[in-house]
Amino acid sequence: MDQDCRKTKDLTRTAPIERTPKRPRRSAEETRGEILDTAEELFRTYGFASVSIADIATDLSMSPANVFKHFRTKTSLVDAIAARAIEQKVHELAQLDSTPSPRERILALATHLMMDHLNGRKDAPFVFEMILVTIKEELDCGERFRHMIVDMLAQIIRDGAADGTYHVDDVDKFANAAFDALVCVIHPVMIGLEKPDILATRCNQVVGLIDAALRSPLAK
Amino acid sequence: MDQDCRKTKDLTRTAPIERTPKRPRRSAEETRGEILDTAEELFRTYGFASVSIADIATDLSMSPANVFKHFRTKTSLVDAIAARAIEQKVHELAQLDSTPSPRERILALATHLMMDHLNGRKDAPFVFEMILVTIKEELDCGERFRHMIVDMLAQIIRDGAADGTYHVDDVDKFANAAFDALVCVIHPVMIGLEKPDILATRCNQVVGLIDAALRSPLAK
Repeated sequence: MDQDCRKTKDLTRTAPIERTPKRPRRSAEETRGEILDTAEELFRTYGFASVSIADIATDLSMSPANVFKHFRTKTSLVDAIAARAIEQKVHELAQLDSTPSPRERILALATHLMMDHLNGRKDAPFVFEMILVTIKEELDCGERFRHMIVDMLAQIIRDGAADGTYHVDDVDKFANAAFDALVCVIHPVMIGLEKPDILATRCNQVVGLIDAALRSPLAK
Repeated sequence: MDQDCRKTKDLTRTAPIERTPKRPRRSAEETRGEILDTAEELFRTYGFASVSIADIATDLSMSPANVFKHFRTKTSLVDAIAARAIEQKVHELAQLDSTPSPRERILALATHLMMDHLNGRKDAPFVFEMILVTIKEELDCGERFRHMIVDMLAQIIRDGAADGTYHVDDVDKFANAAFDALVCVIHPVMIGLEKPDILATRCNQVVGLIDAALRSPLAK
């Protein structure tokens, strides 16, 4: 660990002047949420590698043992931060209008995910670091994200089949294939490499391809 | 530049004992090819950052001025190495059997590209370094690769339309969409993150999606 960097952190952040010396009693759920908020903010500001669980505890005026009760490792913190971000995202996506055609719904879903990453490019170092940790540690939050989006696509496909727009027997297979086809415009790494206007055109055309496949009576 | 690393290189590689002191006269084309062979080998062995044009010249018993006549920068060497690899790849792909159904041809093309990267995983550090340079320097070899594969997909789609299998007016639009949909199984970064059997299933299903879209009379 970089000791110089740690010293800078200690000077600027560790005097919780506006906090009471004794923390008020909180539920386990509240404490967990507070730990995640603080960990996310510190990781974002100083980088994953240079923040320890002890730093997080200090920032919260908590004992490290108390943080350990909730999260045994920094990796488990990353997993929980990612899971929370995914849940938040799924909640947002559930608000998308479900009245338009299935094609418009798929496009709205893909565009929303794409714009998220485009708007979040300034966060890119943080996001990439989190993704690298999840890959190296084989955390299942990437898989969980995939499942949630595949479930949403499956629902759109089922609705499209119910109103006669789509002709698909194996909804799950096509929902997975649709997700994979959209990777080029929703994966943060792919988005990091391309210009927004090109991505928007691609997104539209790949959604057109998916929609045409699902409308085809041969797609069973 | 890392001087220690350079010294190791000088000790192990710079005495061209099997070469005559005066190099035989070569055509500009031959010299260019020799420079690319040597640059690729040195980049692969020592990494892009720690090999200079002077190193490449020394290894070839050539004057740096002579190398400079062909390539002004290391970046232009990377562009030329990538372009050569792409041409080689396109030549290999042109040998693929063109008698099966268009779906089988798209699958063969995608599988070939996917397996290339899977087999080349041991080369991953070299390949990733080259990709990073092409992105940072905005070299056009990535675009060239895309164009060549899109052209191949367009040819398969046109053949499929000619025999009545496919119903597509805007071949170019669908060839581009098909390429984008396949990014999840042919992009080296995406392939680096997944297990081969999962990739094979995905490849098959995305090709099925593309094929269903192209067969649909609604796909115009």
